[in-house]
Formats: sequence, C-alpha cells, structure tokens
Amino acid sequence: MNEYCYFCSLIIEYNPMNVFYIPNATEGLTTLPEDESKHCVKVLRMTEGERFCVTNGEGFLFDAELVEALPKRATVNLTNQRKGYDHWNFKLEIAIAPTKLNERTEWFLEKATEIGIDKVRLFTSYHSERRAANVERFQKVMIAAMKQSIKSRLPKVEDLVPFEKLVKQPFEGQKFIAWIDDDVNDCLCDLYNKGENALVLIGPEGDFSPEEVALAKENGFVPCSLGEARLRTETAALVACHTIQLINQMK
Amino acid sequence: MNEYCYFCSLIIEYNPMNVFYIPNATEGLTTLPEDESKHCVKVLRMTEGERFCVTNGEGFLFDAELVEALPKRATVNLTNQRKGYDHWNFKLEIAIAPTKLNERTEWFLEKATEIGIDKVRLFTSYHSERRAANVERFQKVMIAAMKQSIKSRLPKVEDLVPFEKLVKQPFEGQKFIAWIDDDVNDCLCDLYNKGENALVLIGPEGDFSPEEVALAKENGFVPCSLGEARLRTETAALVACHTIQLINQMK
Repeated sequence: MNEYCYFCSLIIEYNPMNVFYIPNATEGLTTLPEDESKHCVKVLRMTEGERFCVTNGEGFLFDAELVEALPKRATVNLTNQRKGYDHWNFKLEIAIAPTKLNERTEWFLEKATEIGIDKVRLFTSYHSERRAANVERFQKVMIAAMKQSIKSRLPKVEDLVPFEKLVKQPFEGQKFIAWIDDDVNDCLCDLYNKGENALVLIGPEGDFSPEEVALAKENGFVPCSLGEARLRTETAALVACHTIQLINQMK
Repeated sequence: MNEYCYFCSLIIEYNPMNVFYIPNATEGLTTLPEDESKHCVKVLRMTEGERFCVTNGEGFLFDAELVEALPKRATVNLTNQRKGYDHWNFKLEIAIAPTKLNERTEWFLEKATEIGIDKVRLFTSYHSERRAANVERFQKVMIAAMKQSIKSRLPKVEDLVPFEKLVKQPFEGQKFIAWIDDDVNDCLCDLYNKGENALVLIGPEGDFSPEEVALAKENGFVPCSLGEARLRTETAALVACHTIQLINQMK
C-alpha cells in the first residue's frame, strides 16, 4: 500500500497503523502508555529495533525505535523531533449537542479530527436529545483519528455544559450560531473572515429554542446558515468545520 | 421538535419521519411502493386522511393524503406539486472505490446525499480493497438520506467498472483526480471554476497506481489536492463534494 503523505517524506517509511501517541513526549528514551504498549507488543507483535512514528499530541512528531518490548511499559527512543503539518494560524472550535445516537457524534469527532479542528465544546440545550456524554470515549475516538491521519495535535473535547453557560464562555474571534429561519440568509462562508478564530454553535437535533437564539445573539453570536441543504446535526457540524478550513486554504 | 426547513415553509407542517418516496410520481391518485406502504401503514400506523410529504426523486415534492391504508399497496392522493430546493446549475459527480468497510462507503453516500450530489460512480482499481459492491443497498442508503433531508432528487449510484473503463466514460465539464504526490500542489478549491460541471476521482484506500494516474491524465483528468490533511477515502470524497457545493454557494 502506497502510504502517501502530505507533509513529510520521512513518514512514507512508516505504516500508518504504526503511529503511537505519547502525551507531551520529547526526544530521548521514554515509555509508551500501557494501552499503547499493549497494542505495540501484544497486538502488532513488534520487536526490539522496530521503528515507527510517535505523535505527542502537542504539535510534534518523532521517529521512534522500540528499545525494550515490555507489554505494559515498552521503552522507545524518540529522535528527529519535527513540527506536524497540522498547524494553522487561526483557532477553529465547534460547539455541538451530543446526538441521540452516539455513533453520529463520534463520526463527527473522527472526521473533524481528520479535516482539522482545535476544540469541540459539548452542550445540553432545551431540545437536546442526550443529556450525558462519555467525554473519555469521545477523546479516544479523536486520538485514534489523530494517529490514523498522522497528526501532531490532539483536538480537545470539553465536557457538557448547559447552553446558558456555553454562550457566556470567553472566546477571542468570530462567534456564529447555525440557526435556521427565514431571517437567516447569510451563509457562514460569506460571514467568516479568512484567518480569524471561529467558534460555531450547531443546533441540536431538536434545534435551538427562540430563547436560546436570543441569548446567543446577546452574547455576540452571529446567526448564520450553512446553505440550503437540510443537514443532520453531525453533518452540519462537519460542514461548518470544513467551511472554515477550506476558506483558509483557498488562494 | 422544530422542523425547520430551508426551502419551503409548507414542509414545516410535516414530520420528516413521514417523507415517502414514489419514483416518478405526479399529482393525483397513486400507490405507495410495497416497502413504503408497509412503513406507512404497519410501522407508522398511519390512517386514512393523514397527511405527509412525498418526493418523486426526479425534482418534485408533493403534499400527500392517505386515501386507502392498505399495508402492501396504500393509495395516496398527491397535490401541490412543487420543485424541490435541491436543484443547482451544475453537475457534481464523485467517483470512488468501495472501501474495505462497507459502512464507510455508505456513510459517504448518506452525507453526500445530504450535502448535495448528482451521481456517484464506483470503480475497482489496482489497489482497491473491495472488488464487489451492493449497488442496490447503496441506493437504499441514498433513498433514506433523500427522504430524511427532504430532497426532491435521488442521486444516482452507478455499478462498479474497472478504472481503465471509468476514465474513458464521457463527461462534459471539469475532470479532476485527487492524487497526492509532491508534484500536486494545486487544491481542488483553486482549480474548480464556479458553475461548471465537475467529476472528481478519489483515490482508493491503497491509492492510485502511477499507471492509473498517467491514464487519467491522458483522458483529461487534472491532478488536484484536497489540502494538507491526510484524509481517509470516504472523508476525501465528502470533502471534494462539499468543496464544489461550497464554492457554488459563496457570493
């Protein structure tokens, strides 16, 4: 399989199955976390001397060599620290209410991590279908996607907060609420200014209540449309994420 | 639940659960297909006089009233024929090799239908992971997505053809191949001309072989990148689809 790579010819040597995550790793000898050690030694049956790629989730990738193949705490030697390609000059955050079907939220988290996002904020609102979220599981989905797409930065996912609290949280940049009614004709793609930070609130499956929209407006959120298509919550969230990334990509 | 709707205030009356598909339907008395009749009468337990929305998959929506609640061939009366919102002045087609995991291809088909696409072409290539496709099942996924997003047009999905045959099929418009190597720096978003028809070939999980890329170029396909991010096949396909739709949406 031709492992093409957009950012670093070195990576082409590695099988993307063999990207491991060591939080805050730096160059030199270090230990793989227990679950990563198990995956490396027990599942992939890697042996001492084998090489792979390590991401530290904080913006850097490393060449790694397995030094001691212990199933619970494998030792690796990290060299050739380099900045990942997944750095951009703006912040991109999406706020979403967990969907009735968890797999739809998880699908969004996987795809948003692939396309590129900084943070996902979770909220409950008047019409939310789901009032609890397994943030640890959500973060694991993003870790898997980060490794699969050989990214150097792990997007953060924040725990559920009530909508009233969410809209009052500080954010430096353009704030949008994807709220649909006849008065909202401006598209996110026309309202967003290239290069600026963006936070986009996506309506839950039950959509926002008029009171919630009013509260968001009071707190500086600009109503926007995501186009004519009637999108599911998780699709709308991904469309918003890709819209911001694409506008920043365009020449 | 607030059933917001982007294109037609009438639809707000209807629960999107209750959109039915009658191929090529026109105004007047007609019969629901057997599976739709069953869903209407047995699953949703709708009774005579109840109203819902019907799409004919050919560009039109109707108001429908259940006239005779037969579980295998329910009779409905269609009125108020109107054009759907999902018409655009360009053709958008994506060619993709079915993924190893069917659910990933089906996910793309669902999301592309929501966002808007005219046709999906399937192909097998040197590195493809899957050599068979259940086109009927794929079409069902798109029918469900069309109904869920209250669309009037059903995207077509074409059966598997070898890559060599695919690149020789006629297409009037811009033809792209999302092929990644150091020579490909131009992004689809910079190469595509707003308003033109577009066909985008997406590399399979094993990516294209150099021979396949050469053959595509010979047949008029322009190599393009989808940005820096390393995307899964189905994500790349959706990103290409949304890129074309977004560019046409932008003022």
